[in-house]
Amino acid sequence: MSHVKFEQRISLITLAASDLERAAGFYEALGWQRVPSPDGVIAFDLIGQTLGLYDRAALADDLGVPAESVGGFSGITLSHNVRSEADVAPLLTRAEEAGGRILRPAGEVFWGGFIGYFADLDGHIWEVAHNPFSKLSPKGEFRWEGY
Amino acid sequence: MSHVKFEQRISLITLAASDLERAAGFYEALGWQRVPSPDGVIAFDLIGQTLGLYDRAALADDLGVPAESVGGFSGITLSHNVRSEADVAPLLTRAEEAGGRILRPAGEVFWGGFIGYFADLDGHIWEVAHNPFSKLSPKGEFRWEGY
Repeated sequence: MSHVKFEQRISLITLAASDLERAAGFYEALGWQRVPSPDGVIAFDLIGQTLGLYDRAALADDLGVPAESVGGFSGITLSHNVRSEADVAPLLTRAEEAGGRILRPAGEVFWGGFIGYFADLDGHIWEVAHNPFSKLSPKGEFRWEGY
Repeated sequence: MSHVKFEQRISLITLAASDLERAAGFYEALGWQRVPSPDGVIAFDLIGQTLGLYDRAALADDLGVPAESVGGFSGITLSHNVRSEADVAPLLTRAEEAGGRILRPAGEVFWGGFIGYFADLDGHIWEVAHNPFSKLSPKGEFRWEGY
């Protein structure tokens, strides 16, 4: 067994995009600001990690898979948690106004949360969630047991 | 336009798994420790966010999509950045020993980094990367311009 261990963190989340600037425009319309980056990648710094947008064909090439095989739904969702139930519906609306598609409108779920889902322009799935059991830190950090 | 803005962060990354305990065993074999969570979800706290494992069929149901449609590759990769080039290959080996599949062995890439890719047991794609332009913070935080 290799002795080196993975530290417990994710540095960069990369989302494939068919049109980088258009994809970035969606996140900017949500209220996010990009940081300077080289041509071919667009970066949004988050808390302790970065969201990167990268050309779909280039990503397929990097991975050695056919470009047509990138799409569909691999079973990864990204959740944006909020401080109050009342924030969920307006954020879904904002995502829709930015060109996103609401997959599930704001509502209660069996585990006691209040959530909705939307897809971005490339079909990446986001949840907007209020989880009353996992309060965010003042800075917006999340951990399972809450702050 | 809705006035409410998205804060710039991702709280929870959820990975669909066909067998929750088996999927969790993979991440534990990488060196990660789970936190207590209710039945049906397994959680690993990261820096300011949590990685959650969730049953594939349950996720499909939550999203209102057929379970068979979950799979393939949606174009999301998760990158685990490391402090030195020398860490990349041993971590890929560790992932392979844990049952993962190496998709691209450790090597240089055009932008000046040194990286490799592996897939976890459910096909979720991880990059192990040394990026000389984006030095990690002592705590392991990442931002595009580095620390």
